[in-house]
Amino acid sequence: MKRTGKYGLLLLLLLATGLAWGQTFNPKAHGVIRSERADGRFYSSRGVVHAMLKNNVPKYAFNPGFTPGEFKKWQQELRTAMGRLMKHPQLSNLPAPQLLSTVRRDGYRVEKWEAYPLPECVTSFLVLIPDGVTEANPAPGILCIPGSGESKETQAGEPELSPKFGSGDTGAEAERWVVAVPYVKKDLVAVVVDNPGAGEASDLERYTTAPDYNYEAVARYLLELDWSYLGYSSYIDMHVLNWMKRQPVIRNDRLIVCGFSLGTEPLMVMGVLDPDIYAFVYNDFLCRTLERMIVLTEPDENGRRPFPNSIRHLIPGFLKNFDFPDIVASLAPRPVICPEGGLDRDLDLVRKAYAIAGKPENITIYHYAKFADRARGNYERLPEGLNRDLYFELTNVDPPRHDVKMNVVLPWLDEVLK
Amino acid sequence: MKRTGKYGLLLLLLLATGLAWGQTFNPKAHGVIRSERADGRFYSSRGVVHAMLKNNVPKYAFNPGFTPGEFKKWQQELRTAMGRLMKHPQLSNLPAPQLLSTVRRDGYRVEKWEAYPLPECVTSFLVLIPDGVTEANPAPGILCIPGSGESKETQAGEPELSPKFGSGDTGAEAERWVVAVPYVKKDLVAVVVDNPGAGEASDLERYTTAPDYNYEAVARYLLELDWSYLGYSSYIDMHVLNWMKRQPVIRNDRLIVCGFSLGTEPLMVMGVLDPDIYAFVYNDFLCRTLERMIVLTEPDENGRRPFPNSIRHLIPGFLKNFDFPDIVASLAPRPVICPEGGLDRDLDLVRKAYAIAGKPENITIYHYAKFADRARGNYERLPEGLNRDLYFELTNVDPPRHDVKMNVVLPWLDEVLK
Repeated sequence: MKRTGKYGLLLLLLLATGLAWGQTFNPKAHGVIRSERADGRFYSSRGVVHAMLKNNVPKYAFNPGFTPGEFKKWQQELRTAMGRLMKHPQLSNLPAPQLLSTVRRDGYRVEKWEAYPLPECVTSFLVLIPDGVTEANPAPGILCIPGSGESKETQAGEPELSPKFGSGDTGAEAERWVVAVPYVKKDLVAVVVDNPGAGEASDLERYTTAPDYNYEAVARYLLELDWSYLGYSSYIDMHVLNWMKRQPVIRNDRLIVCGFSLGTEPLMVMGVLDPDIYAFVYNDFLCRTLERMIVLTEPDENGRRPFPNSIRHLIPGFLKNFDFPDIVASLAPRPVICPEGGLDRDLDLVRKAYAIAGKPENITIYHYAKFADRARGNYERLPEGLNRDLYFELTNVDPPRHDVKMNVVLPWLDEVLK
Repeated sequence: MKRTGKYGLLLLLLLATGLAWGQTFNPKAHGVIRSERADGRFYSSRGVVHAMLKNNVPKYAFNPGFTPGEFKKWQQELRTAMGRLMKHPQLSNLPAPQLLSTVRRDGYRVEKWEAYPLPECVTSFLVLIPDGVTEANPAPGILCIPGSGESKETQAGEPELSPKFGSGDTGAEAERWVVAVPYVKKDLVAVVVDNPGAGEASDLERYTTAPDYNYEAVARYLLELDWSYLGYSSYIDMHVLNWMKRQPVIRNDRLIVCGFSLGTEPLMVMGVLDPDIYAFVYNDFLCRTLERMIVLTEPDENGRRPFPNSIRHLIPGFLKNFDFPDIVASLAPRPVICPEGGLDRDLDLVRKAYAIAGKPENITIYHYAKFADRARGNYERLPEGLNRDLYFELTNVDPPRHDVKMNVVLPWLDEVLK
């Protein structure tokens, strides 16, 4: 049990009555975590774990000195390690997905399907099929995975299942989140899923806080059961991807995965585990999550240092194996577009992997407009003691413009499908 | 990245301006998680994980039908599984702990030591030694592990290292938290540690929120590194316990561990891993944490169902192996006192283990005063849809009286050390 309730109340009271608390504590003075001892050890457990993070060397880090042969061997090892971390259950005799309904749209139809990837679970997805695409004339297929706070209906441009599920944007601003319709207009079959805990897969948020979803509750219970949010989401998404492979209207030699924000994580997992995927839309900035944890240490006025993200991103042991740039590097030589850049240091690593794999032209990178037209920051190593805003600034990220970059993705698509 | 910031703000605004939000959502109506489908499957991911929790059967659950031989075999298997989960590093050539200072008190002395259990870590502990205890006249040793929000100095009755580290109580109320002094007055050598992230092991809380500590930050980074708060705390505590074994003033055939609240968790781990420990003071109520997660589902006015505790209690995969009553049962036949009761259902399970192990007299149980003198609730299975208050009521817990029960522990101690 907790014995801190009364202190929480006391704290609130102190803050509320305006006592001069914060004035004696200067967050900026404590940004960097330093040992005060000659031997470098920490009394503070936060200091200890910070040092442990800094000493951590991911086992399957990409090495830009790889020969093509070493690269392939490493790729296979990374795949095995990813499979071990994701813990996808091996279930047989699962029921086949069922078609629930079909609606006509201008130039395409939208089918709603449901699938049964786990004994306890039913999950639904939308399939947008262009007119003219048939078994005799199959099309490339693209699996679209939404970002945080998004429903599959938002990405598909379909009516929301609950008034609260929408983005809250209207008109041209709302169009910014629609991904599947531009793809279907390019004659692809677009499939859109919900992330676990969001949209139709949410709990009570439709009555209350949606589109602010409690992903963390789902994540916490999964972690208790030795799984993880990403292990679960990538398993569900893989189940749908495998269904796509069996659809005669979809060319299974032209399967693409498009992940936005939160959706880039299952994209990476599927990309590593499934060599059949043809190309990837990685719609977020690329970063080193281990470094982000190490440098994001400026406390708030209560002395709390931020954690970069919530436990829906926690995969125990992930960082002992690899980091995001390693994973994207391992997708080479399959085409990938990164429309929201990051640090050139990390992007160059991915570029190097594509060069080693013999297809340097298969990695396409754009930066946020704010960082495209001027000298971007580049760092071999970011300084410690950052806050969130400064971290984004230094890594060339423009948070208000974090959205779907169809303007660069669609021309890229024309190229990779030529 | 998150796209929910603006919605959070919107929510705050709505709440602040008093719009009639909550009135349309009735939390009580959504307490129990139910599938709306004939096949029992859930669209809601929260529903899916809830069903997965209900289907979870811990591998090393205690079976009251064990023969004495089966019990011993199971005990050994549980020990192996616990070792696997706790991931204690096997380090050699660690520096020996150092004595930092000694102060005289009435009838005993207090030594402050520091130890070096990890290359990045220094941890300090207090040793209270009664006058008259010498190498020629060694005494039993008791390791005291504080609860949440407590420093080792609080439990030792010593001056706090920072004004904010104290309990905030004064006089007789402050005495409630002092554990080590009553033990030393009974002629035991009492050793007191800090929990990771608390007291001297805290980060910036001494300037701000202490004794409200950010244990969760420490826990999160450890989880990222494939460890856990409990794995870490039990490792540190075990390091100190092993030091105790080498002290000539301590009888290492009479080592006792006393855990209060949060401190009962490392107590359980050490008890399982180390058969040399002689007896245990388990100062919290005993409960089934898996069941607690299953039944604690009544949402708040925002539709958020509670999670029983924070991620400092998260050990990935723990629940697939065992639950608290199984672990306490596995301590048989070594003496244990549970001064804050719980459900008779769970306590009877532990009693049964002690009977199988041939020492039914070695389990001592008291209930909260509120539940001692009247018919207590007892349930084979708790109903779902509870809130926290109701959960405590049904499990015979009186939260305001959750404290150190020296009144029953000290007479028990006389018995077990007779």
